[in-house]
Amino acid sequence: MTSIDQLYCKTLDQNDPLAALREEFNLPAGMIYLDGNSLGAQPKVAFQRAQQVIQEEWGNDLIKSWNKAGWFDLPSRLGNLLAPLIGADADEVVITDSTSINLFKAIAAVLNIQSKKADANTRKVIVTERSNFPTDIYMAEGLTQWLDRGYRLHLIDSAEELSKAINQDTALVMLTHVNYRSGALHDMAAVTAMAHAHGALCLWDLAHSAGAVEVNLQQANADFAVGCCYKYLNGGPGAPAFIWVPKRHQADFHHPLTGWWGHAAPFAMLPSFTVTPDIRRALCGTQPIVSLAMIESGLQVFAKTSMASVRQKSLALTDLFIQLVETRCAQHQLELVTPREHAQRGSHVSFTHQHAYAVIQALIERGVVGDYREPGIMRFGFTPLYTSYTDVWIAVEILRDILDSRSYNTNIQRNAVT
Amino acid sequence: MTSIDQLYCKTLDQNDPLAALREEFNLPAGMIYLDGNSLGAQPKVAFQRAQQVIQEEWGNDLIKSWNKAGWFDLPSRLGNLLAPLIGADADEVVITDSTSINLFKAIAAVLNIQSKKADANTRKVIVTERSNFPTDIYMAEGLTQWLDRGYRLHLIDSAEELSKAINQDTALVMLTHVNYRSGALHDMAAVTAMAHAHGALCLWDLAHSAGAVEVNLQQANADFAVGCCYKYLNGGPGAPAFIWVPKRHQADFHHPLTGWWGHAAPFAMLPSFTVTPDIRRALCGTQPIVSLAMIESGLQVFAKTSMASVRQKSLALTDLFIQLVETRCAQHQLELVTPREHAQRGSHVSFTHQHAYAVIQALIERGVVGDYREPGIMRFGFTPLYTSYTDVWIAVEILRDILDSRSYNTNIQRNAVT
Repeated sequence: MTSIDQLYCKTLDQNDPLAALREEFNLPAGMIYLDGNSLGAQPKVAFQRAQQVIQEEWGNDLIKSWNKAGWFDLPSRLGNLLAPLIGADADEVVITDSTSINLFKAIAAVLNIQSKKADANTRKVIVTERSNFPTDIYMAEGLTQWLDRGYRLHLIDSAEELSKAINQDTALVMLTHVNYRSGALHDMAAVTAMAHAHGALCLWDLAHSAGAVEVNLQQANADFAVGCCYKYLNGGPGAPAFIWVPKRHQADFHHPLTGWWGHAAPFAMLPSFTVTPDIRRALCGTQPIVSLAMIESGLQVFAKTSMASVRQKSLALTDLFIQLVETRCAQHQLELVTPREHAQRGSHVSFTHQHAYAVIQALIERGVVGDYREPGIMRFGFTPLYTSYTDVWIAVEILRDILDSRSYNTNIQRNAVT
Repeated sequence: MTSIDQLYCKTLDQNDPLAALREEFNLPAGMIYLDGNSLGAQPKVAFQRAQQVIQEEWGNDLIKSWNKAGWFDLPSRLGNLLAPLIGADADEVVITDSTSINLFKAIAAVLNIQSKKADANTRKVIVTERSNFPTDIYMAEGLTQWLDRGYRLHLIDSAEELSKAINQDTALVMLTHVNYRSGALHDMAAVTAMAHAHGALCLWDLAHSAGAVEVNLQQANADFAVGCCYKYLNGGPGAPAFIWVPKRHQADFHHPLTGWWGHAAPFAMLPSFTVTPDIRRALCGTQPIVSLAMIESGLQVFAKTSMASVRQKSLALTDLFIQLVETRCAQHQLELVTPREHAQRGSHVSFTHQHAYAVIQALIERGVVGDYREPGIMRFGFTPLYTSYTDVWIAVEILRDILDSRSYNTNIQRNAVT
């Protein structure tokens, strides 16, 4: 292994084809931000976009903006801008509501499809991971308990259990493509094929994938997907989420959140619901326009590169981080949680440490922003659009210094949001 | 009847205790905006608030803002600011999701409460109005069809039918307090008492009431309420909605949208859902922070007056409008749809006209912004915080001129959003 130093990292930056994209973002001076997997950084044009919506569209044009500024079509128009990043076709994605709400719609649609099949009485299991992001599990729990038709969750403890867990009783395989904690990446095509071979459908949560790894939903023959716009897509805090329904499933996409934006004729004001035939059937109520509109600013940056380039740099950044932590902090009992194999790794890296929470707080104090996740995990996100190789070097040096000097407070009080 | 002229209206403005509040809003020059019942005007401080959230909280503090800027508590904090406007107690309101989604939660909670009662097998009817805002009906349809437990909707055609429609089979009476089309206002306390007398629960949609008429949910002994923040509350386009669950019902408030924001320990990342005991159980997923934060700017204006003053001016404005239209446009076959009785009138006024759509478009062209609603209705909203008596005079004079000169285009093509 070549010995790596800051000069070497600087050379990597000089040869980085994505280096210029950092200029598209506002990044606080003196901060190395390794939390873009939780809240993406701010595209410089986001504020101007918000200003346009607030001052011109809302302030000057008021109600006319529903037509004139295209507010009513924003979920579809932004969905079409996002589609190429996840291997979706046109008119298959809308940006709307939260990831939790979109999960509910998709789970409901799958159970409805399965309930029409001959083996509906026995096909009652939703397979997911115990380590899935909690809200995914909670939404499935909430829906199945309410339906009270014998659906049950089967929580597996590792990806290896999938092949045993998926069988003729499986209605739905619901997985997060990249695990929010470990950073482990599922083989979407292989798992989907396994599910289909047993008559199950496959729902993918792309919260930590969209804008982070190459995703090709069509090629993987996936059934449904949802995901988040405020992480790697840099859409702004709590920006509305997306939902993908491929054309082949749109006619069968039924869910109980039948709000007026999903109606075939929303302005006819009819007293009975008729679902629209296209992707807008995944819509429900009126959307928060300012937060929604800013998502475009994040998507515009991706239009200047390709997901292949983003992925290549992501792997280089995470490789470098793992290698530096394991060499320069070798004596500090940091345990890598994230898979080493590229094919199994997303765009963040997690290590356990006995004092993980305290160390993360000390890092944040020193300007290196990662985050803590239960239990005992330090999590670091690498966002190729604005993270440099030198950032990685400096971050690891500060981590090493904190650990070497034990300059972290193990009695630190925890924040509500960790 | 005194003869009314523009000078008289000017005198009314000079004596209007709310006149100064108009300065709190950005209103486009030359526009008389009578559509604040659809999209409220922009509080002057809204843009600064957005700028703070986007540039400082998101741009500079990034992920830290979940704690430091209180993003995670925004739904509750803003809910407490809104509570006094609708007669709710502290910790009974959250601002979150859309009105449609909140309706779903509340309808689900009611059906769950009723399903525990001895007469659950026969108490299967949801009473509502055929003229209710469509999404209210659609959400009830969506939920009951999915539950498939014999719940059915009973759509009545006038408020007079309520006393016959509500009986021992009624699980839920679900009404919009002020009708979006006619402007008719229900007697909340009387209807709620009627529902309770028959063992039914009462859910109120306050979309056209909050910030428009005096609402006292506690005094009316209402059970649940939802409503909109982007109409009379001036929260910005598509701003998240609110939901009210009184303390007496909070322990029984169960719905299937069990996202992580409603969990008792959202950051413990537990693999099973446990509902939080307080009002936050009405939350589901992550909220759009920029759109959410701007709601505060609208609520701050209400803090400078009282709903009694707002209501008093609202009735004066709508009285004046009705009187002027009926006298100055007397020969044009405009038919008043809105009740004349104060106790039965909200804060907008609707007239039918043979060429309603064309006339509304002509008014908009001349700077008087009302809107059209099917079938054949011209709708005019009166927002006491920023509408003057002189506005009313001028609006009616322009309407009269358009009608007298027949300067409207009956072949005009309709916009998607009308």
